[in-house]
Amino acid sequence: MSDRIFNFNPGPAALPLPVLQEAQQDFLNYKGEGLSVMEMSHRSKTYDGIIKGTEALMKEVMHIPDGYKVIFMQGGATLQFAAVPLNLLPADKSADYVNTGEWSKKAIAEAKKLGKKVNVIASSEDEQFSYIPKEIKVNRDAAYVHITSNNTIFGTQFSNYPETGKVPMIADMSSDINCRRVDVSKFGLIYAGAQKNMGPSGVTLVIIREDLMNLSPENIPTMTSYKINGGKESLYNTPPTFAIYIVKLVLEWIKREGGLKKLEEINMKKARILYEAIDKTDFYRGTVKKDSRSIMNVVFRLPSEELEQKFIAEALKNGMLGLKGHRSVGGIRASIYNAVSLKAVETLVSFMAQFEKSNG
Amino acid sequence: MSDRIFNFNPGPAALPLPVLQEAQQDFLNYKGEGLSVMEMSHRSKTYDGIIKGTEALMKEVMHIPDGYKVIFMQGGATLQFAAVPLNLLPADKSADYVNTGEWSKKAIAEAKKLGKKVNVIASSEDEQFSYIPKEIKVNRDAAYVHITSNNTIFGTQFSNYPETGKVPMIADMSSDINCRRVDVSKFGLIYAGAQKNMGPSGVTLVIIREDLMNLSPENIPTMTSYKINGGKESLYNTPPTFAIYIVKLVLEWIKREGGLKKLEEINMKKARILYEAIDKTDFYRGTVKKDSRSIMNVVFRLPSEELEQKFIAEALKNGMLGLKGHRSVGGIRASIYNAVSLKAVETLVSFMAQFEKSNG
Repeated sequence: MSDRIFNFNPGPAALPLPVLQEAQQDFLNYKGEGLSVMEMSHRSKTYDGIIKGTEALMKEVMHIPDGYKVIFMQGGATLQFAAVPLNLLPADKSADYVNTGEWSKKAIAEAKKLGKKVNVIASSEDEQFSYIPKEIKVNRDAAYVHITSNNTIFGTQFSNYPETGKVPMIADMSSDINCRRVDVSKFGLIYAGAQKNMGPSGVTLVIIREDLMNLSPENIPTMTSYKINGGKESLYNTPPTFAIYIVKLVLEWIKREGGLKKLEEINMKKARILYEAIDKTDFYRGTVKKDSRSIMNVVFRLPSEELEQKFIAEALKNGMLGLKGHRSVGGIRASIYNAVSLKAVETLVSFMAQFEKSNG
Repeated sequence: MSDRIFNFNPGPAALPLPVLQEAQQDFLNYKGEGLSVMEMSHRSKTYDGIIKGTEALMKEVMHIPDGYKVIFMQGGATLQFAAVPLNLLPADKSADYVNTGEWSKKAIAEAKKLGKKVNVIASSEDEQFSYIPKEIKVNRDAAYVHITSNNTIFGTQFSNYPETGKVPMIADMSSDINCRRVDVSKFGLIYAGAQKNMGPSGVTLVIIREDLMNLSPENIPTMTSYKINGGKESLYNTPPTFAIYIVKLVLEWIKREGGLKKLEEINMKKARILYEAIDKTDFYRGTVKKDSRSIMNVVFRLPSEELEQKFIAEALKNGMLGLKGHRSVGGIRASIYNAVSLKAVETLVSFMAQFEKSNG
């Protein structure tokens, strides 16, 4: 497949080629059963094996301890912004939020819109979200603490998670889930839209401690309820069957690649060579404090906006897609998720050197 | 593809073979762009063409008049059961619901659970939902009237829609959308999970009159808001990009087949030969009043449950899948959606004659 492009899209994003190939091969006739996965009843024995298998692989790959439930939901992180306070924030309590960028702000705004009491206990808005706050003091009576583990737009990422004591920590990991090993036992709830590091858009992964899952009140929309969707094994209604199947193939690929330990090594290496290319010249300029840099979304600037546009256009001509920064911040962003190969990053680094030579 | 099965699944259900073939061909490299549709940014020019094209095709195929918005949402009909009252039923009003089966009951229960005032103005629960009520008197001050146009489980379908005057009619058309021509101007809102007659699971089609769309209050979950999701052209957050793309291919297929007029003819013929096969013997017994029979889900019984089990098992051996009735009612159900060919139905009818001969 030499005609495949190097895909640095921020999400939906690159998928591993072997995953696409396997799905393509079985597309009309899954394992000789005479139909596509898309055409299967979600209550059939075959599909039950797929969804249960996906759940089991999630637990295996992420080392999810006993006492947690994996749920496949719909509506992306945006639905979770509502689901988290609807399920877990009663009227007589408040929740703590850490504000590290656009997605944190949206999570906070959604909770407030639903009439919930929110405390922003730390923020990096004072410096254009260019760092992850270090001093995070949790209110001991908070219902939970909400963080965004990686900020796709600004290119920051928690390297160490805060200690929250008995207060459940909730993380939106949409843009860095499974980029590295994580101690799931530190979290009350982890959620992630699949479309960056785990599969196609349209399915959201939720990992929730079972005691929290059972707190859902009755009077909330069914599709936001952890208790109902978890209690029914993600089959309360018809789940996004094909998207979940692709997630299964991605998890199988992660296992074959050597698991999260191995992916973490590769991801660290990819990020290191890219940040080194940025740091060794004045032509490229990283926008994020070094201790807060994301290993998934690498954001940098060139000397002028004209050069940035030229960079993006010439990169595309050289087979590299998706390098334009988010419309709200401009510049360059290389999203180097699990499925973006070391070779893709090396190709980008060579191009950067070449581009500087011609335009520096 | 002679190894493809005849698929009578109730949903997710059969998709047109040419749709699957085209998606398979472009699966790794869409139109030579070097990436899968699943790997595209939802904000890219190419994907924008796909989603706008899907919307335009929906309007064309369904003859949707001006003043209506097409929105692609997530969460299936279950999310709509909540979204409809959250958006359109203020605290000082009540809404009318027609109860024609399990899905109507769920819609009613969801509205009540959210604290909304609901009047059930007609019901066929008195006779196991075996008919569509004829006398439907709408309260003139109701915020809306909600109906389920086709009942997948019981096999009933509205042949004529009630007259609701100035009260907006809202229909869950999940299991019969685009099985025939419909005068969209009679409706305030139509919604449908795609997974029966329009595409894969994970995307919900919403067609809403624009004046109703703009009634959404601010304090409801963003992913349930018609105003936000419609206002942002279904791109407020990342939509289920691949599922929408498949819907586009299905709409293109409908056009090539001759549009809804032609599909309606074929669907009527498929239903007619199947009901004739049921009616001409005492061995098979239809469970639905003749004037309420669905042309999408044909439900019938055999003389005993043992024979029904044998029928399902032998049909499967003969290449026919998905004929088991819903777990709540038993018996046989043949779902004969648009993508189920006349040949599939003829094969089933031959098998039925053969089975009766051997077991009657």
